[in-house]
Amino acid sequence: MRIKLTIEYDGTAFCGWQTQPSLRTVQSELEAAISKLTGSPASVTASGRTDAGVHALGQVAHFDTDKDMGKKFVGGLNYYLPDDIRVRSAEVVPSDFHARFSAKRKTYIYLMYEADFDSPILRNRATRTPPLCVEAMEAAAKRFLGKNDFVAFRSTGSDTLTTVRTVYEASVERRGGFIVFSVTADGFLYNMVRKMAAALIEVGCGKMDALDVGALLSGDASFTKVAPPNGLYLYKVEYEKATD
Amino acid sequence: MRIKLTIEYDGTAFCGWQTQPSLRTVQSELEAAISKLTGSPASVTASGRTDAGVHALGQVAHFDTDKDMGKKFVGGLNYYLPDDIRVRSAEVVPSDFHARFSAKRKTYIYLMYEADFDSPILRNRATRTPPLCVEAMEAAAKRFLGKNDFVAFRSTGSDTLTTVRTVYEASVERRGGFIVFSVTADGFLYNMVRKMAAALIEVGCGKMDALDVGALLSGDASFTKVAPPNGLYLYKVEYEKATD
Repeated sequence: MRIKLTIEYDGTAFCGWQTQPSLRTVQSELEAAISKLTGSPASVTASGRTDAGVHALGQVAHFDTDKDMGKKFVGGLNYYLPDDIRVRSAEVVPSDFHARFSAKRKTYIYLMYEADFDSPILRNRATRTPPLCVEAMEAAAKRFLGKNDFVAFRSTGSDTLTTVRTVYEASVERRGGFIVFSVTADGFLYNMVRKMAAALIEVGCGKMDALDVGALLSGDASFTKVAPPNGLYLYKVEYEKATD
Repeated sequence: MRIKLTIEYDGTAFCGWQTQPSLRTVQSELEAAISKLTGSPASVTASGRTDAGVHALGQVAHFDTDKDMGKKFVGGLNYYLPDDIRVRSAEVVPSDFHARFSAKRKTYIYLMYEADFDSPILRNRATRTPPLCVEAMEAAAKRFLGKNDFVAFRSTGSDTLTTVRTVYEASVERRGGFIVFSVTADGFLYNMVRKMAAALIEVGCGKMDALDVGALLSGDASFTKVAPPNGLYLYKVEYEKATD
């Protein structure tokens, strides 16, 4: 049977999601925990990779097993997992469910705080910025909405066939002591959210404006800045109701 | 001259404030940084010790030096300090200023979040609890107000002459996704805030009520629970205006 997991992790001490020889990754820790729990090796597929230092509140992954453990997968896996990964839920899904290919919408949030020095408390949880004009950032974020070619917001190394993505929601607002950039799309290119965040920080500092962001979306410009990973969270992945 | 430092730190990777042989402590890291910056050994005195895992947003400490570096102490010390300690401000104070003995009021906050599993993102920043009744906790917190004998809220090992303290402010409220206990007093006994927090969590769960908390303050009872250090922050230390 196929199991869908929803996973939270602190990306600080991981070399990203994907298994790499002799490096600590989320995928390898999860596969090790599943193997210990079920007694059989397992291969886990995520909705997408996250880079080193990037966090997740609602990463989704699936794996196949012949052990019918039902809800016990949550407690069982959490028993074996290190404390920077936790399974939030586990459910049996149809065998044609695929964590990556069945995903309809993904939401990322990017957390920023304005300060003169790096905060020890926030250092691996949010990105420090100079004072920002949130209204200008919010206006620029709205430029991302709709179907656009995000080739200028892709880092090289991306292997996707098309650079067109549809952004359903994009906003920047103050919440608590943070400035929060939230973006929902049908998919994201490599480093796309971190490049969007970098552009919005430029806008917030007055170095770019919403028109410049619009120009980048014309597809013939490139933007080289990438915001640090420590402020980025994969917030949720949405599927068709049947498996959501 | 005497320098007053205001310091933020993430207590997770420290064996508390106070220097101990072959252990990593905030005091020893600070003294090492001062020594590197000024070229002379230094002895740092804090407003009070914090235990392993306890954080600070506004710890205050002083030291004496013959190097007149003015505002450059902030950048200079932060250059040498590890990224889990940051000096927020440095100022020259009168030679009779004493970080501990001149302190008039200290404020601690204790962060809690209600969840079924330990959150990887919050695990070293806040304490997980069952669902809590914040109104009951707030009512119980008000019992702490005023001049009381907190002997029941002291852990053994405390070497203070009196267990009477005056609490100026005490509140429990929801803020963001957290439940925040905030308390201001003229001083705190060893583990006092963590024992107060533990009692308030008992109240929030319905295992104790405000009357029970009041009974503990009669001085003839003892309360053995101590809430974990990871939710505790030394928020600020207040002095007479002349040096504040």
